[in-house]
Amino acid sequence: MTHTFSDHLLICGAGLIGGSLALALARAQARPARIEVLERDAARAAEVLRLGIADAACAAHDEAALRAAVQRADLIVVAAPVLSTAPLIARLAPWLRPGTAVTDVGSVKGDTVRAVAAIEALDPSCFVPGHPIAGSETSGPAAARADLFDGRRTVLCPGPDVAPQALARVEAMWRAAGARLVRLDAQRHDAVFAAISHLPHLLAFAYLEAVLDGPVSREALDLAGPGFGDFSRIAASNPDVWRDICLANRDALLADLDRLEGRLASLRGALEAGRGEELAEAFARAAQARRAWRPNARVQPDGSN
Amino acid sequence: MTHTFSDHLLICGAGLIGGSLALALARAQARPARIEVLERDAARAAEVLRLGIADAACAAHDEAALRAAVQRADLIVVAAPVLSTAPLIARLAPWLRPGTAVTDVGSVKGDTVRAVAAIEALDPSCFVPGHPIAGSETSGPAAARADLFDGRRTVLCPGPDVAPQALARVEAMWRAAGARLVRLDAQRHDAVFAAISHLPHLLAFAYLEAVLDGPVSREALDLAGPGFGDFSRIAASNPDVWRDICLANRDALLADLDRLEGRLASLRGALEAGRGEELAEAFARAAQARRAWRPNARVQPDGSN
Repeated sequence: MTHTFSDHLLICGAGLIGGSLALALARAQARPARIEVLERDAARAAEVLRLGIADAACAAHDEAALRAAVQRADLIVVAAPVLSTAPLIARLAPWLRPGTAVTDVGSVKGDTVRAVAAIEALDPSCFVPGHPIAGSETSGPAAARADLFDGRRTVLCPGPDVAPQALARVEAMWRAAGARLVRLDAQRHDAVFAAISHLPHLLAFAYLEAVLDGPVSREALDLAGPGFGDFSRIAASNPDVWRDICLANRDALLADLDRLEGRLASLRGALEAGRGEELAEAFARAAQARRAWRPNARVQPDGSN
Repeated sequence: MTHTFSDHLLICGAGLIGGSLALALARAQARPARIEVLERDAARAAEVLRLGIADAACAAHDEAALRAAVQRADLIVVAAPVLSTAPLIARLAPWLRPGTAVTDVGSVKGDTVRAVAAIEALDPSCFVPGHPIAGSETSGPAAARADLFDGRRTVLCPGPDVAPQALARVEAMWRAAGARLVRLDAQRHDAVFAAISHLPHLLAFAYLEAVLDGPVSREALDLAGPGFGDFSRIAASNPDVWRDICLANRDALLADLDRLEGRLASLRGALEAGRGEELAEAFARAAQARRAWRPNARVQPDGSN
């Protein structure tokens, strides 16, 4: 059934996620007859064609070409930074055919759901908010990989009035790409991902800045071992993508930042006063939770989810 | 030359570091004629013998056996938590033969150097402070690996009055174990490792505690992807080891914590006020530094360092 979810797919944004999605569908022999990409960066558009990711690349500024691509599409994936997603959907909305499904890949869902609901020219039942949990600190079409979604979760947050046909198209697409589907309410999604993804990124960025503020030279930084490497890896992530994510999920992120600052203040107090047992107990709580963590995000794809 | 650095090695503490050291020396055919371990935990002592890590295991409470083992040794490696290192050396000091070298593996050096210098029964020229940069969130003799130090740095912080023979023994041992040697002043060492290792551990512990305080269930935690996994991996580290490290390097760690809290406060201000460009600029500074990082810690061992 998966080969019928789309005849004409338009992917808006040919970066890591959009590019990997096209490659994953091609690998699964579930490739729509035609894949077009919308890409505002000319060099990236050329790379997409060179890498065989899409059949055609449409420049974002070319209004007539974009209109034609949207009118042909039966499925549109907006793979743009979070705060660009709703404005882009608003731009495409007047040209959508009835029955065309629109989905996104943003790491924050509530903000986009609210902004998309306010688009007057859009039939809101066509929109299926989505979030593939498969980022990387790399970006761009050259980083795209056909196996990026294999066995990973894609969270969908459809509203109560979603069109069943739109939901079915988007679900079939992600299954064909190798992902397992999870449903979450958009607000719940944002609370979960503030804690497990957005706060760690904010901390990793702040940590690297603090190191740069301190007395440790770049040379000494190279003495750091694998602990530093793993802890700080996400600080290499795309700054613009993460600016959008933090702004779009501000309230949940600030609540988590409050909790983090509270815990840091407790540890600081114990450290200043030399209360070793208090430190050890706190570390043991954290260690116990981390050791108990079972990353289900990568599981065997079985098509049954 | 490396096979002559020791005829009788005593390793105090048969955990990941001590056990791996013995295995690495055996692999390099640089094993001293006899390796004994001092271990207070009977189960671990038995495991050390079962795994072939040492020829004999001496219980820490067996005063006569310990005395005999110290008197036989020409090289003693104290592989104990940081705050136990100097007290253990004080206990062994009265029994040391002239010419026996003593080294440690602690992640903080200034505190141990000061405490060891205050041991009246010890000739301070025998002590070579050391720090192999090769930890792991695993621990215990079962986690020991012959390749743990391959191409990794071991930092030595010898004082100006160190005995050349003691320094030569310790250097030859680490080279035989596969490590590359780096010299740092103890205070400089502690400033560097506060920034690149101790602060990340404190943050990872505080982060896990903050998540446990929040609304995200253990189940939802399993939705987390590889970014969470890498960022939080060091939060699984041994709580007692890290209590000691934080206490022993308190001043440098608190200075780094000040810098971190300052950066977090700036990011919070930008986030609350919706100043997106300020966020993106901060993230870009961090990302640039992280992308430029070149982990020299794992390099080809060449014996020439």
